[in-house]
Amino acid sequence: MAFSERIARLKGSLIREILAAAQRPEVMSFAGGLPAEPMLPKVDWSAMPTSVSQYGMSEGEPELRELIAADARKLGIDCDASQVLVTCGSQQALDLATKLFVDPGTQVLVESPTYLAALQSFQLFGADCLEIPQEADGPNIDSLRALLERSTPAFAYLIPTFQNPSAVRYSDAKRDAVAALLDEFGVTLIEDEPYRELVYDDQQPTSITSRLRKTSWIYTGTVSKTLLPGLRVGYLICSKELYPYLLRLKQAADLHTNRVGQWQAAQWLGTEKFQQHLVELRSFYRERRDTMQSVLEEHFGDLADWEIPQGGLFFWLKLKQPFDTRTVMQKALDVDVAFMPGEAFFIDPEKNPGYMRLNFSHVPPERLDEGVRRLAQVIRDGQSCALA
Amino acid sequence: MAFSERIARLKGSLIREILAAAQRPEVMSFAGGLPAEPMLPKVDWSAMPTSVSQYGMSEGEPELRELIAADARKLGIDCDASQVLVTCGSQQALDLATKLFVDPGTQVLVESPTYLAALQSFQLFGADCLEIPQEADGPNIDSLRALLERSTPAFAYLIPTFQNPSAVRYSDAKRDAVAALLDEFGVTLIEDEPYRELVYDDQQPTSITSRLRKTSWIYTGTVSKTLLPGLRVGYLICSKELYPYLLRLKQAADLHTNRVGQWQAAQWLGTEKFQQHLVELRSFYRERRDTMQSVLEEHFGDLADWEIPQGGLFFWLKLKQPFDTRTVMQKALDVDVAFMPGEAFFIDPEKNPGYMRLNFSHVPPERLDEGVRRLAQVIRDGQSCALA
Repeated sequence: MAFSERIARLKGSLIREILAAAQRPEVMSFAGGLPAEPMLPKVDWSAMPTSVSQYGMSEGEPELRELIAADARKLGIDCDASQVLVTCGSQQALDLATKLFVDPGTQVLVESPTYLAALQSFQLFGADCLEIPQEADGPNIDSLRALLERSTPAFAYLIPTFQNPSAVRYSDAKRDAVAALLDEFGVTLIEDEPYRELVYDDQQPTSITSRLRKTSWIYTGTVSKTLLPGLRVGYLICSKELYPYLLRLKQAADLHTNRVGQWQAAQWLGTEKFQQHLVELRSFYRERRDTMQSVLEEHFGDLADWEIPQGGLFFWLKLKQPFDTRTVMQKALDVDVAFMPGEAFFIDPEKNPGYMRLNFSHVPPERLDEGVRRLAQVIRDGQSCALA
Repeated sequence: MAFSERIARLKGSLIREILAAAQRPEVMSFAGGLPAEPMLPKVDWSAMPTSVSQYGMSEGEPELRELIAADARKLGIDCDASQVLVTCGSQQALDLATKLFVDPGTQVLVESPTYLAALQSFQLFGADCLEIPQEADGPNIDSLRALLERSTPAFAYLIPTFQNPSAVRYSDAKRDAVAALLDEFGVTLIEDEPYRELVYDDQQPTSITSRLRKTSWIYTGTVSKTLLPGLRVGYLICSKELYPYLLRLKQAADLHTNRVGQWQAAQWLGTEKFQQHLVELRSFYRERRDTMQSVLEEHFGDLADWEIPQGGLFFWLKLKQPFDTRTVMQKALDVDVAFMPGEAFFIDPEKNPGYMRLNFSHVPPERLDEGVRRLAQVIRDGQSCALA
């Protein structure tokens, strides 16, 4: 039996494997980007019409597409509902974009580090991923220009708002500079914004997409972080010339997204009720972040450096004495703690030892201190072994 | 901007395009495989637990996987829940299988005609599709052996039960012969069974999968034809050595299937209530098939030949005076009638003019005579033009 050549590049998803291991209720998981259970809103299904049960359109539910487009216009993205494609989570938007652009050897630009499930998707199709060096306020612009001058990437995949995993938010100036460079070199932008609404300060710079003048773009979002992940409703919005291709790729992938989840999402988007929910969510997560910050200071102060995230769901820790934290993942699970080794978010994990991504939304406060304490001990032991 | 080379092979889905055109309520659609609206069961969401709202496992909901495996064992398929992967409709199973097996130039065997969305998926990835000639009771076995002797296909994609579009059901003898040949040549079987439960006589031959002795296999099914299409819940079951690859491909595609739909499906599968619903469904569709048969005899008796389908949702008509029915698709829509040109189900449509696939489940009886009468007139006019 012969598999396709892409299967040689097929990696397991470390996130999914850790999440599976973290299913045991006694495990304190800092691994996933899971919303806090108490903040999953109660939803009502009683008004759902029977017509939703029938096959639906590949594009998505017209009402939901209108709501998504209206939301995007508020972010400065010049678009209408005809540019919206509802997807099975924003992960599917990446699968479709990869199919559209990537052959074996196709160059694509990614942040370093970057979202590992995106990396997994691009690499499965044979992409040659080129790293954009990051700073605290976004990419190093000189490096990005140099990279664009010596390569011909099909697209740049960027997460400018509370980047996963680094929690970096691009500054206004860097957003402008990146948009100008992509326009200048005619490189398509894929802007991934799952965490946009989870912001804990007053700054809300507009999307890079809204700053483009001519190059093609795909903007992706999801209701998974703000409403219910189990609905599996994400979306992409794209410049008009890309839409017919992405739509056909969606048809070939799964015909259409589930309508039940789309209907529920449409009950929330754009409503006063949803705005109120977001306000509560931000306040709840801000508090969890602050608690996590105190607990980290206590247990990790001598072990790692980090910035306080202004949004999103993660702390990004850099160990003062770096070692490959993937080697202690199982040891952490042995003491009922799950975390994401940061190495997995780099194209070359071997060259980037000593990072950890820690979620602060999921573990309840009463177990937080114990969880972080145990994790610190696992890291301390790991460091001793690595130095020995 | 450069797309991937596969985009040159990206076709629109004729089905989806016709369905979109058929959205106008005045259109009588014989085009899709849509369940009849009155037979969509009332479903209750009130007992759904909040936990379903959270992210789920890529494999699917454990309870649902158990139910699917139990169902499959009743069909003689030796499997357990660990071999079940819940997908976004059975179309996604095809996408995942294609990713697993197909590089540009990879040979795959398909029936002629075959399901056009499968063809679309295989061809998108560059498959070289080889046709298995069909007879009224399944493939010509000598032709299949000859084909296997001179090719090295990655898999055979078969729809042995109420084949789409031809409505053919493989006989017991041919199922045995096909299984033996695939074993002999070590060719993986993809057996697609969306219509298995929609059977209108007493015959229920077991799956080809259950007759295999050693070769790899993927068996796919869906709740779209028996429960609610809008849930978008399908599944694949596969031989154990394939599972880890398909699971990782699922992770990269969309992380997991929507849990809301999975929960609802699990309320039905394996229950007395579902069995009762299937009995009613069969009776309802049998009646619609019989009505359609009378109406077709009246309006198409002099225009086409066909067999009475013993299951599924379609009549497959062969015109006595063949012409490319794609040329009159728009003319049919102009008089508010939609149908599926049969040519689209062949690898080489140009060489197979004069087929039509007509759905009998969707148009209500009171509009049926008018719809078929109009369609016959469109075909009659088309024939005159083609002969002129």
